[in-house]
Amino acid sequence: MKIHVCFTPAEYTPEAVGEHYAVAIDVLRATSSIATAFHNGCAAFIPVETVEAAQAEKAKHPTALMAGERQGLLIPGFDLGNSPFEYDAATVAGQTIIMTTTNGTIALKRAQSACGVYPASFLNANSVCNALKAAGKDVVIICAGSDGGFSLEDTLCAGLLVERLHEGAVLSDTAMAVRSMYLGTQADVRGTICASSHAAYLTGLGFDRDVQRCLDMDCYDVAPVFCDGVIRL
Amino acid sequence: MKIHVCFTPAEYTPEAVGEHYAVAIDVLRATSSIATAFHNGCAAFIPVETVEAAQAEKAKHPTALMAGERQGLLIPGFDLGNSPFEYDAATVAGQTIIMTTTNGTIALKRAQSACGVYPASFLNANSVCNALKAAGKDVVIICAGSDGGFSLEDTLCAGLLVERLHEGAVLSDTAMAVRSMYLGTQADVRGTICASSHAAYLTGLGFDRDVQRCLDMDCYDVAPVFCDGVIRL
Repeated sequence: MKIHVCFTPAEYTPEAVGEHYAVAIDVLRATSSIATAFHNGCAAFIPVETVEAAQAEKAKHPTALMAGERQGLLIPGFDLGNSPFEYDAATVAGQTIIMTTTNGTIALKRAQSACGVYPASFLNANSVCNALKAAGKDVVIICAGSDGGFSLEDTLCAGLLVERLHEGAVLSDTAMAVRSMYLGTQADVRGTICASSHAAYLTGLGFDRDVQRCLDMDCYDVAPVFCDGVIRL
Repeated sequence: MKIHVCFTPAEYTPEAVGEHYAVAIDVLRATSSIATAFHNGCAAFIPVETVEAAQAEKAKHPTALMAGERQGLLIPGFDLGNSPFEYDAATVAGQTIIMTTTNGTIALKRAQSACGVYPASFLNANSVCNALKAAGKDVVIICAGSDGGFSLEDTLCAGLLVERLHEGAVLSDTAMAVRSMYLGTQADVRGTICASSHAAYLTGLGFDRDVQRCLDMDCYDVAPVFCDGVIRL
């Protein structure tokens, strides 16, 4: 198994790698909310890039919930924002959810040509690693990043995955880098991420509880996969 | 002191930071050769981006040596390649050197609007840190990278600088990241870099001795600075 990491979606060039599974990471908060929703029984996610595309999907799936954020905040007229606490069983069990977020959706959609894309977060890191080990194919991990730039929390989560997958694997330079970064931070991953710019931004908006929740590790035994336009278990 | 790190020259946006010193890192091998040359008494480096620009500078400075590489190899008609061993005292003492390299020169030139740019490498890391501490201004560290992409060796050298400068400093997300990366690799920086793609490429060209030399730490007490088009002590 070869493992490569992209710090941003723009760095992902599927033509440069062979057959592979992709992983999309947006710790704060899209892929953490997706893991929470599947743990709580949701049926499917349809990720789309724009509000207009979300409305078009809603026309096709009238009972679906509309979810997402812009600048971290609920989109007017949508049912759900991007907080994992909104995706409780009472709200999402059995539901299809149409989602558009600033960074996470872009990372997922960009990797559509992979065998499948696993949305991953600290909350379901272990399950995603188990699924990737079972698949046995090469892996490209895509950090959603922050507005096209580097994201400390996504990179550290990528580092956790690489640390758990590295035995017997061939690591690219970026995979070695994020593994080192995770190992160098391991004693205080939570404190390090809480000092990051995006965690500070969300805390400033009143989402500190979300930030703390998204940093809990291996809470949910779910590894949904994005394939043919839909995320399902 | 605020410290920020750019993984590639393209990420450097001087307008986004206030008055600052920049650091340009191209461990394999440009900034390692520059440190070696100043240790061995060279007078000045004139970094230029193209072979044509090097020839134009040579017309202005007929006694200057022409140095650099393309794809790691000596440029036809030039006096010196990019190996630190070529920059010995017998060759460079008192000399002005016109240099063009694939990545290092680009990083240096891109930061021209900073108060000054320190070419840094493992070989002179300590001296550059001391100079930056003495200056007391904000610092932006630019990894030269590899053909516009990520470079493990430059990033780890950046991490070493941040680790030595971090006390009392405000670190950006990327500065925290490279510091963690360095701390996670500290037990075997040499082995980690030797496993990187660019080290493997240079070793394949027969430059293993260069790679090993460039990973020696704090050998030279020189902190030359690039200002007004020329690098001088």
